[in-house]
Parts: sequence; structure tokens; C-alpha cells
Amino acid sequence: MSLGEFDLIAKYFTRPTPRAVLGVGDDCALLQPAVGLQWAVSSDMLVEGRHFLSTVRPERLGHKALAVNLSDLAACGARPVAFTLALAMPRVDEAFLAGLAQGLFDLADVHGIELVGGDTTAGPLNLCITVFGEVPPGQALRRDGARAGETLWVSHEVGGGVGDARLALEVFRGHVSLAGDDFEAVRRAMEQPQPRVALGLGLRGVASAAIDLSDGLVGDLGHVLQRSGVGAVLQVDALPISPVLARQPRARQLQCALAGGDDYELLFSAPPEAEARVRAAAAQAGVAVACIGRIEASPGLRLVDAQGVALPLVLQAFDHFKDGPDA
Amino acid sequence: MSLGEFDLIAKYFTRPTPRAVLGVGDDCALLQPAVGLQWAVSSDMLVEGRHFLSTVRPERLGHKALAVNLSDLAACGARPVAFTLALAMPRVDEAFLAGLAQGLFDLADVHGIELVGGDTTAGPLNLCITVFGEVPPGQALRRDGARAGETLWVSHEVGGGVGDARLALEVFRGHVSLAGDDFEAVRRAMEQPQPRVALGLGLRGVASAAIDLSDGLVGDLGHVLQRSGVGAVLQVDALPISPVLARQPRARQLQCALAGGDDYELLFSAPPEAEARVRAAAAQAGVAVACIGRIEASPGLRLVDAQGVALPLVLQAFDHFKDGPDA
Repeated sequence: MSLGEFDLIAKYFTRPTPRAVLGVGDDCALLQPAVGLQWAVSSDMLVEGRHFLSTVRPERLGHKALAVNLSDLAACGARPVAFTLALAMPRVDEAFLAGLAQGLFDLADVHGIELVGGDTTAGPLNLCITVFGEVPPGQALRRDGARAGETLWVSHEVGGGVGDARLALEVFRGHVSLAGDDFEAVRRAMEQPQPRVALGLGLRGVASAAIDLSDGLVGDLGHVLQRSGVGAVLQVDALPISPVLARQPRARQLQCALAGGDDYELLFSAPPEAEARVRAAAAQAGVAVACIGRIEASPGLRLVDAQGVALPLVLQAFDHFKDGPDA
Repeated sequence: MSLGEFDLIAKYFTRPTPRAVLGVGDDCALLQPAVGLQWAVSSDMLVEGRHFLSTVRPERLGHKALAVNLSDLAACGARPVAFTLALAMPRVDEAFLAGLAQGLFDLADVHGIELVGGDTTAGPLNLCITVFGEVPPGQALRRDGARAGETLWVSHEVGGGVGDARLALEVFRGHVSLAGDDFEAVRRAMEQPQPRVALGLGLRGVASAAIDLSDGLVGDLGHVLQRSGVGAVLQVDALPISPVLARQPRARQLQCALAGGDDYELLFSAPPEAEARVRAAAAQAGVAVACIGRIEASPGLRLVDAQGVALPLVLQAFDHFKDGPDA
């Protein structure tokens, strides 16, 4: 407890910021925007017991805090540039800080981005990251661009799927029991999501609308449909399901995949004739994509099985005021 | 509790954002930087019991959360453009949200800036704002520009001074008793600080170094001295003291003014020959400035009285891990 907040910042969170005009340590960071590009900005706050469990390793928490923000840039097709971190901690725990910084900077380095400023304070554990990215004017992927007749896609890990993070949560809650390796696999999905930045960049000019899956597929798709003024048919049998989740009862599979939350995959629409370009963008980014439905003019979301038979829609979107790791 | 987080955002925090390419409601906000300008970015997190008391009116909390961030832009001489808000709340309280939004947007309107995005979640009360401003290359006020021989200045309210916020805190802590009007005056200083944005803009090209007073004058001055590689002499009798604080014992006056924290005034240095321009910038901005010392080549901070007699330096800077409203 001998370290003051200034020393803390210096020790764990000050690194060279060659791309910034001025980095950590002044009242503001100074950044020089690239000529002609727009800035994409997103801010996400992670709260203990809500977005992560107290048992999470600090390295994974650092990774996840940045990953969920990068996922927002990915959903816009923006190239990440820099981020700020505001951090409230109940006490000064150097091991925690060291791990947190490690996880954060490891992911930052993958994407070549810099921590340019922020804040640290005492308080209940809370991480707020704001990310900045660049995108050429008119090329950002938005939620309001989906058009009737387009194909609906979702990204996923090669050999994986959507819903694993939620399955891990069910294990933590004691509702599901998994063998050790299976648990580790879904726990990694929950604690170390991979933001689909490369895919988002590859989908510029290809996808018409995109969103990242944070609150559950049905709820997030609902945002796209609402803002685009369209509806959709979703083929539940086309949802990518990991081998671990596939061993669960079908009802749980669908609950996790459709309303699980915390997937941080990209859900997007594209004209049918863009299929080859979608697949090329995915291959280039090293991720898989699944075609899971189509956009229709008629509002609302309709779930169907492989035979086209309608399924009842009884799922709720993930809502951070009603649901979450401690709910 | 029937409102979900999306409805909440829409109801209280979605307003037109004519200056943004894309505002609240997508994965990212999109902003078009002005050609040739740099971006100044700062992020501050406010925690209940640490940066504000649970008794604060929501309107004042909204004001303060934005004010402390704008104060960072002011200290850089940056013109505010936009901000994001991430908010954790233990429960959905519409009266609280309505008041918070009111205080936030009232101050935002004064500075013509837009809320372009953010996040809301359940959790212990926490507000994290990230602000964006613009400044021409090379014109940002920094902490590292102070040079020996320069004059040291601090801004203050006309008829006011520094240290009032700390005096209010001492009242809340039960260490000091004040008459009703006096308490209201210092409480306003604590809960509704006025960011010196206009002064910061006016000091571009005039001041050599600047910082905003958040952690206490001695501590904040120490950052400037350290980063500039210089020392300073500070005339404690030249410190601007409000009439309310002036009625306190001298030791408390100095404690509050020198190490109080939460002032959000600008502390800056300028060449002696710039005095007329400093005063003109202050007059233009409608604030007062006091000349409180000078920068010297010899490292360290020396406090002296009006006769130049050295005073012992026994003050501690405000540290959010050791001090604060609940300490």
C-alpha cells in the first residue's frame, strides 16, 4: 500500500507511445488523426460480478476488458489506434496490476495499439476502456444498413461456435457440470474472447450492416433489424455450435447460442452475391463464418429449423440489469 | 426496474449529435476530425464515496463528472468537441438518471459539446467520462514546458480562491462547522467546479506549462516541476483565498489551498513579459488569476511568506488511495 496512484500508473501502465504526439502523464493525450479518416470511438465498462467473476485471472481480465472494446471497433470495420483505461480498485494489489497490464498489453500488441492515458482510483473493481479507431468516410459498418434479401452471417472460431461463453457461465453458476478440458475450452471463450478486428476490416465494402455479439445473438440481431427497419428469418440449425456445447441438450444449446451473450463474434448481413467475398474475408482473417438466415422486409425475427418449420421465440436478450455472471 | 439498459440510454442520454457523423446507438460513434488539428483525449472516473458523496444532488454529480474531464482539456488548451459516458449504477433510478442527465447536458451545452456514446451497466455507482478536444499542432499546453525565471499563476473565481472544495469536505467530515450560506458557497465549489476552458484556450501561445488542480496545488505543481526539470518558489501569502476560507485559522487556510484537491483551477507558468497577455486572457475568460510564485532552475518547491521567509513544507498531495471524501 506504499505506492501512490502516480507511481502505479508509471510502473504498470506507462509504455512508449510512438504513434501518439503525447502519451500517458499529462492532462490529456494528444493524437494526430490521419488525414481524411474518421474516428470511431467506443467505451465499455466492466464491473466485477457482472462482466467478470472475482475468480478470473488478472491476465484474462486485462485481455477481456480490451477485447470487448476492440470488438466494437471490429463491428464498425475500424482499424484500432489507441485506447484509454480508467481503473477503480479496492486496494493496491501489485500482482493483480502486473497481471492485468500483461493481459492488456499482450492484446494491445497483437493489434498494434497504444495505451495513451486514463485514470486510477480507489473503489469497487471497475475497468472502463475507451478505444479509438480509424475508418475511411462512408466505409464504417453500421447497424442500420441491412436490406431485405440479404444473407445473415455470424463469425466463429474455426471448430467452435457461439454460446460457449454462456455455457461456461452456467458451469460457474452450478447449473451445468463439464469435464475439465471441456470446461477449460468454454471458460476460455468466456474469459478470452478474440475481437474480430481483421474480419471487420475485411468486411468493409462487403457487409451492409454489422454488430458484435455482446448481449446475445437474438437481442443484438434485434438492434440491427430495428435500426435497419427490416425483419429476418434465422435458421437455428445453421448456428455454429462447438463440440462441447453440442454435447448439451438441444434446448441448452439454443439458449446459449441465441441468448447467451459475451460471444464477441460479428453478426452481419451482405448481399447474396457477396458470398465469395465474405468467405474470402473470413479466410483472410483466419476465422470461420456461418450463413444463418436472411433479411426480410417484414419486421420481426422468425426462428425456423432446417425444414423451415417455425420455432417459438421465447428467449430473452442478455440485459446487464437483469442478467450477468452474478444473476 | 422495468426499463432495460437500452431504453434507459435512449430516454435520458440520446440527444441529437449534429457534429458527429454517427452518435449514440451503434457499436461506435463516428467523428470527423477537423483538418490539421490534433485530438486531445482524457478519461476520468468518479467513484461514490471517493470523488463525491452519496448526498450529492444528481444534477451536481452530472455537472462535476463532465467538469473534471473538461478541466483536463482546459489544462491542455484544447477546445472540447465530444464525450462518452460509461455509467455503473446499483439500480435503475429514473429520478437519479434524469437529474444526472440534466446536470451533464447543461454543462455540455455551455461548451457546445455532444455525448456521442458510452455504456450503462449495473454495479456500484461509477461514472467514467472520456472527453475529446481539438488543438492545433504544437499549441497544446503541457506539463513539461516550465522554464526558470517564469512566473507561476493560478486561476480562481472572481472574489473566490483555491481550497474551498476542501473546506466543504472538512465540513462533511465534521471537522469544521460553517454557517449555512458559507457552507453552501464552499459546497458549490466542491460539487460544481467550473472548468476553465476559455482560459485554457486564451493561454495558448501565452503560458509555457499548465495543469489543472485536481489533487492539490502542491502535488499538481510537483508534476509540472518534475516533468519540466525545474523548481519553484511559492508565495503562500499570494494564494487567492475566498472570504469564507479566510475566516478559518491560517493553518487550515494553507492546508486547504495548498493540498486541498478538487479545485479544477488552472496552474500555469508564463514568461514575466507575458503578464499583460495572461491578464487579458483571464479577463476575456471572465476569471481571475493570481501570481503566486516563480519557476527556478534549482529543483524542489520552496514555500515562502510575503517577506520571503521560508516556511516548512509538511503538506501531502491528495492521493485517491489515501485521501478522499470518505477517508
